[in-house]
Amino acid sequence: MAEAGGGVGAGVPRLLGTWSSPWVIRVRVALGLKGLSYEYVEEDLASKSELLLRSNPVHKKVPVLIDGGRPVCESLVILEYVDEAWPAAGTRLLPSDPYDRATARFWAAYVNDTFLPLFRALFRSMTAEQSAEAFKNAVPAVETLERAFGECSRGKPFFGGDAVGLVDVALGSHLVWFRAVDEVAGTTLLDGAKFPGLAAWAERFMAVDAVKEVVPDAGKVLEQYKGFRAKWMAAAGST
Amino acid sequence: MAEAGGGVGAGVPRLLGTWSSPWVIRVRVALGLKGLSYEYVEEDLASKSELLLRSNPVHKKVPVLIDGGRPVCESLVILEYVDEAWPAAGTRLLPSDPYDRATARFWAAYVNDTFLPLFRALFRSMTAEQSAEAFKNAVPAVETLERAFGECSRGKPFFGGDAVGLVDVALGSHLVWFRAVDEVAGTTLLDGAKFPGLAAWAERFMAVDAVKEVVPDAGKVLEQYKGFRAKWMAAAGST
Repeated sequence: MAEAGGGVGAGVPRLLGTWSSPWVIRVRVALGLKGLSYEYVEEDLASKSELLLRSNPVHKKVPVLIDGGRPVCESLVILEYVDEAWPAAGTRLLPSDPYDRATARFWAAYVNDTFLPLFRALFRSMTAEQSAEAFKNAVPAVETLERAFGECSRGKPFFGGDAVGLVDVALGSHLVWFRAVDEVAGTTLLDGAKFPGLAAWAERFMAVDAVKEVVPDAGKVLEQYKGFRAKWMAAAGST
Repeated sequence: MAEAGGGVGAGVPRLLGTWSSPWVIRVRVALGLKGLSYEYVEEDLASKSELLLRSNPVHKKVPVLIDGGRPVCESLVILEYVDEAWPAAGTRLLPSDPYDRATARFWAAYVNDTFLPLFRALFRSMTAEQSAEAFKNAVPAVETLERAFGECSRGKPFFGGDAVGLVDVALGSHLVWFRAVDEVAGTTLLDGAKFPGLAAWAERFMAVDAVKEVVPDAGKVLEQYKGFRAKWMAAAGST
C-alpha cells in the first residue's frame, strides 16, 4: 500500500491488534480504504505486551492505533481519528454534511450498543435452546438495521452511499463472525428472504478490496470459534 | 438567548426533553454554550408524544433535537451535531486538533460506557449494603476520571482546557444527580480529599452560566429521586 500524505504524527502509524478481532478488522478496513501504510503488530491477549498495557491503560484492549508515538484507543474513536487526521486520503468515512454525520454516528452507536450485545448473546449461547432464544431476541434489531440500510443508502450500494462509510465498517467487520455463529447455531442472521437489503449489502461489502485484504479466512474463524466453545464448555463443566 | 447564525435547518431548533434528565441537560448546556435559541418541549415519559415516538422510533427516548424538521437522537451524537452544524457559534465543544478530538471522544465514551453504568448501580441501590458495594465498585472509575482530568486539562480549569468541552458536558450534566445520590446513600462520590482535581472542577462547572441556567434545583432533583425510590421499594415489595 502506498503512503498517503497527511496524518498528525511523523512516520508510519502502528496498529496493535489480534488477527480475528472484528474491532481490529474495523480499523484495518478503514486504513485500507484510506490507502494508508501502517505497521501491524499482532498481540497475544493471554500475554499482553508492555506497549499495549502502556498505550491503553484504561481498557487494556486492542485495537490501539499509535500515530507519532501517541495512542488512540476504541475502534469507533480510531475510525473518526483516521478520517480526520488524513482528510485527503482515500475515501471519507463520514459524510461532510452535519446531519448526515449525525445519522452515521447514530447508527454506528446502535451497532455497538444495541445490536452487538444481542449478537454476543447468540455468540455465547451453549445450547440449542439458548441459541434459539438469543436469535429470537436479535431479529428485531436486524429488522431495525434493514430499515436503517434503506434510509442511509437511499438506493445506493452502501450505508455510506456510493462508497463504504462509518456504519458499513462498524457492522461489516463483524460479518465473518456472523457467519461462523450461523454455521454453529444453524441460524441465518442476515436472511436474504427477510432482509434483502442487508443480505445484498453484506455480499457487496465482503467484495470490497480493502475488506478482502484484511478479513481473515472464514474457515480459520470458524475453527477459532469452535476452540472458544470447547474452552467455555470445559470451564462450565469444571465449576 | 440570541440566535447565532448557521445551523442546517431553517428556523429555531426544537428540543424534546424532561426537566431532570442528565442526558437532556447535556444538550441544554451545549445549546447554551453555543448561544443558540431553541424551543424546549417537556415530555411526559409516562405518555410519550407522537412527535417523540416518530422522531426517535428506535429508542423512544429523550433528548431529541429537531432541526429544520429533522430529528437528531442520542445525547453525544447531538453534542457533536450542535458543534458541527453551528461551527461559528459560541464555544467549540470539540478541539480542532484530530488527536485532541480523539482524546475527548475516548473520555466521553468512557463516561457513558464505563463510569455511568457503575454510577447507575449506586443510583439503583436500595439497601446500605448494596450502596456500599456499588460505591466501592465505582471508586476505581472515579480514580480513572481524576487522572483523565489531569491529562485533558493540562493545568487548565476544564477537561476542554480554558473552556467547557465535550467531556465536561458529558460528565458535568450528571453532577446534580451525583449529589442527590450522595445525599441518600451517605457517600461522597467526588471526595475533595481523594479527588482534588475533579472536586474543584465540579465546583467550576456548576458555576458556568450556561450550566446554572439549565441545571434544575438540587432540592427538586433529590425529591424526585426519593419518589423514584419509594416506587422501586413498593414494586419490590409487591413481587
